[in-house]
Amino acid sequence: MEYPSELLSRAVEEIAKLPGIGKRTALKLALHLLKQPPEYTRELTEALSAFRREVRYCSRCHNISDTDTCEICADPARDHSLICVVEDVRDVLAIENTGQYRGVYHVLGGLISPMEGVGPEDIFLPQLVERVRKERPREIILALSPTVEGDTTGLYIYKKVKDTGIPVSTLARGVAFGEEIEFADEMTLARSLANRIPFENSLKF
Amino acid sequence: MEYPSELLSRAVEEIAKLPGIGKRTALKLALHLLKQPPEYTRELTEALSAFRREVRYCSRCHNISDTDTCEICADPARDHSLICVVEDVRDVLAIENTGQYRGVYHVLGGLISPMEGVGPEDIFLPQLVERVRKERPREIILALSPTVEGDTTGLYIYKKVKDTGIPVSTLARGVAFGEEIEFADEMTLARSLANRIPFENSLKF
Repeated sequence: MEYPSELLSRAVEEIAKLPGIGKRTALKLALHLLKQPPEYTRELTEALSAFRREVRYCSRCHNISDTDTCEICADPARDHSLICVVEDVRDVLAIENTGQYRGVYHVLGGLISPMEGVGPEDIFLPQLVERVRKERPREIILALSPTVEGDTTGLYIYKKVKDTGIPVSTLARGVAFGEEIEFADEMTLARSLANRIPFENSLKF
Repeated sequence: MEYPSELLSRAVEEIAKLPGIGKRTALKLALHLLKQPPEYTRELTEALSAFRREVRYCSRCHNISDTDTCEICADPARDHSLICVVEDVRDVLAIENTGQYRGVYHVLGGLISPMEGVGPEDIFLPQLVERVRKERPREIILALSPTVEGDTTGLYIYKKVKDTGIPVSTLARGVAFGEEIEFADEMTLARSLANRIPFENSLKF
């Protein structure tokens, strides 16, 4: 498509760089800005610029935080000897929403991905290793997505902290609640079988 | 969801104001910015700001254009006595892509929508009426979407230029190419029947 304006063309191109947004949607979004007062675009761009420029991370868990130590890390009621390792703030929000976890987090800010050129040093992984050696928690819980990147990252962390003797656990994988057995994928089903648990334990919730 | 940072919260809120983007996607997009170098966000916000601030419209057809008269309106090979009325630049691109139209356009920049508080004065409709009276084209083609807004806008235009005696036509509506009859909606099928054309005409393409 050839747009009748360079300004439009550049705006569409930049919007379409965002993940999951194609040229068509980008054009729709750009035209939407025109239908709104100029303040609308100003507020949007200012919010994005300020966020990218001034974003800060908790000095302990590296979650996004406006303060040097995030609310969770600063909470004395939390169990600071339990570190849950997650990819990003979305996972923290999801786990917090369960209301079941009282430990603290370590936010990696990404996963190791050789395909995308993301190595261990590009995420907050060295900081995790250092933190584990310093704080010596009683357990490290890996709550990483069951993808190639998640598994690679998990294995890397495991190897890096193995010598400390601190137990490393990972989230249970299995048939999801409400999921029908016949629709579960083979991999999940096979692992659920292999890692089956005593029936009594399944009544605990 | 309660975000651990005001900056993040504001960014997500602003992104989620865009049409078709929910809070979840907005958070994903905001976190994506963090994984990219700061220039990425700067280029995005600058492109959007520049577009919204400096956007210009063709003084004749009101399509987005970097010059006072757009390329189509400045083209002497075009049939300037044929005006095709469309909602926005996307429709111009779609019709240009057919390679079948040699007339010129009038871009409304929106449709009349009482529900959203968009009246005839909020789009380039008065400019169309004025242009028609001045240029006296030999035909006005309405290429507006077959929605309530499109039909309302078309009817309004028709009434406004009726006294000039200039013929107003609208795009043929009917069963789309490649569409199976049994899956066509009733309205479309009924109108296709009522507006049936001589078989010879259907061979023209």
